[in-house]
Amino acid sequence: MKQVSSTKSFGGRQAVYAHQSGACHCEMKFAVFTPPEETHGAGPFPVLTWLSGLTCTEENFITKSGFQRVAAELGLIVVAPDTSPRGEGVPDDKDEAYDFGLGAGFYLNATQDPWSKHYNMYDYVTRELPALIEKEFPVDAARAGIFGHSMGGHGALTIHLKNPEQFKTCSAFAPIVAPSQVPWGEKAFSNYLGSNATDWADYDATELVAKHTTQTEILIDQGTADNFLEEQLRPELFAAAANKAGQKLTLRMQDGYDHSYYFISTFIEDHLRWHAERL
Amino acid sequence: MKQVSSTKSFGGRQAVYAHQSGACHCEMKFAVFTPPEETHGAGPFPVLTWLSGLTCTEENFITKSGFQRVAAELGLIVVAPDTSPRGEGVPDDKDEAYDFGLGAGFYLNATQDPWSKHYNMYDYVTRELPALIEKEFPVDAARAGIFGHSMGGHGALTIHLKNPEQFKTCSAFAPIVAPSQVPWGEKAFSNYLGSNATDWADYDATELVAKHTTQTEILIDQGTADNFLEEQLRPELFAAAANKAGQKLTLRMQDGYDHSYYFISTFIEDHLRWHAERL
Repeated sequence: MKQVSSTKSFGGRQAVYAHQSGACHCEMKFAVFTPPEETHGAGPFPVLTWLSGLTCTEENFITKSGFQRVAAELGLIVVAPDTSPRGEGVPDDKDEAYDFGLGAGFYLNATQDPWSKHYNMYDYVTRELPALIEKEFPVDAARAGIFGHSMGGHGALTIHLKNPEQFKTCSAFAPIVAPSQVPWGEKAFSNYLGSNATDWADYDATELVAKHTTQTEILIDQGTADNFLEEQLRPELFAAAANKAGQKLTLRMQDGYDHSYYFISTFIEDHLRWHAERL
Repeated sequence: MKQVSSTKSFGGRQAVYAHQSGACHCEMKFAVFTPPEETHGAGPFPVLTWLSGLTCTEENFITKSGFQRVAAELGLIVVAPDTSPRGEGVPDDKDEAYDFGLGAGFYLNATQDPWSKHYNMYDYVTRELPALIEKEFPVDAARAGIFGHSMGGHGALTIHLKNPEQFKTCSAFAPIVAPSQVPWGEKAFSNYLGSNATDWADYDATELVAKHTTQTEILIDQGTADNFLEEQLRPELFAAAANKAGQKLTLRMQDGYDHSYYFISTFIEDHLRWHAERL
């Protein structure tokens, strides 16, 4: 693991690291915020993993969301990985489209050629990265949560539902909740996973919640002015499945907000407090 | 004036506009944040102008500083122009260097060819843009302040010192305070203004404060881990001149902070409250 950058922020430290990933067979970058020692001591701290959306890298969340102010106050470590494998030899969408390939790993383990060698973001986020974080940073792994935006909201929901003991709390901004039923997910899943519907269901929050409810309440914020709301996001599908299955859910429709980081930054404080209170 | 974008943020609205500038003879963009009507009504509101640093556009401050949270709370309109003229026919540094030409207007009126036609950011920021803002937005022009970062801190200090009745309050992050004595300023001023030292002094905060003290206290935050501190920024030069002239100044050396927006976002709340209390 090598340090790419390290910058003081709200008394804490916002750093970016790179390492050779065994899961993704390439160099991966991730960001880590550690809270101020002056006010919080040396830890161990609860740890949140943030998963970003399509086109993002490890930089978007740490430069645009403003989360550091609240994480510094609450004493949280926040980890934000890149959204896909990168680098020489990592295949991309044939048209370099934004919604598949580089920047669009969908937090799954691909089973199809040529994707299966590198596109293993599920293993990366649930196994390899947490082990590295636990080794290198003062985290209390028993107090871990996950959250994300859009494609990263999909990642957070599916990973929480499948690993509720590892990632105990979950929230999302404008998540893709039913990838098997929307164009972004159909494109990604058919390429990464092939045509087997069972494989799709295992990465679809709306399908998963029917089988894997968790003990905690999930928080979702969704802007009503989000251009992707009706075609790609469709939170009502997840809400109906959660309700039927008995999964506690708080779905807040936020009037007039869009899909951008202006929306995320407005409500990021709520999400951090939500996780901190439950961890 | 045409709207480029408009996004809800912390209950208010973060918009970007474009218009044909008479001062700069090109299309100019600027950002405007307006606070939430629900909590603050329709105005008029105090107005702050933010001036960004080298390489920035109207986007950097509005995406990275997190100022909207506090401006929404306090009921402030915040205007953030681009940092130079742009577009076809606008000359740039011959090597496209980051510290001169596009993205580096230095908030002055150039007197030398080929710069003098377009590079009139002083007139733009002090005359044309405020008139447009007053016409189009619910501002109380009698309650106006100015602040900025690095090259934009230089702009804020010089514009405040020369126009203390128009821009009544002033603060800066890591400002260039003595451009006549540092490489960034020497390069820009010799190109934009020629070799006449009198012309340089009129845009040099350390020279200006000797002649134009203001009634209010100026706030400067400077990170001690700023790579540009010793060669380009040198706040001690301004502090000494201000002290000698009787200009009230609060210069805070912030331990361990660098020149980035992580530094700005950490202290932006202090600056907004500082201005709001004095306007």
